[in-house]
Amino acid sequence: MGRVVRERREALGLTQEELGERCNLHRTYIGSIERGERNLSLQNIERIAHALGILAWELVRAAEDRR
Amino acid sequence: MGRVVRERREALGLTQEELGERCNLHRTYIGSIERGERNLSLQNIERIAHALGILAWELVRAAEDRR
Repeated sequence: MGRVVRERREALGLTQEELGERCNLHRTYIGSIERGERNLSLQNIERIAHALGILAWELVRAAEDRR
Repeated sequence: MGRVVRERREALGLTQEELGERCNLHRTYIGSIERGERNLSLQNIERIAHALGILAWELVRAAEDRR
């Protein structure tokens, strides 16, 4: 999930801080997600997906396809 | 998410206990999920989806479509 979030964020030209502001999560939390240190909740998956301009299931699918 | 889990479980003819055994979660936890009382983690979404014979993104998508 982390790599997908990072790639999508970078593709949008956003910093971790900017992504964090979009979904009301701290940039350090975004960083820990991208490093794969978090077992995200569905609500946070939805918030991050929407901040990245995609749906939650699309984010989950992209992460599953990576495994 | 809860209604989707319940419908899918019932379609498979499983009790909450049987579903719980499949994914190593207590039946009372399954019940609380089905009542919408849980903000599931990605890992538990994956465990429950696989126990229901579907992929995590499919479960998330079905839940999103319901809103």
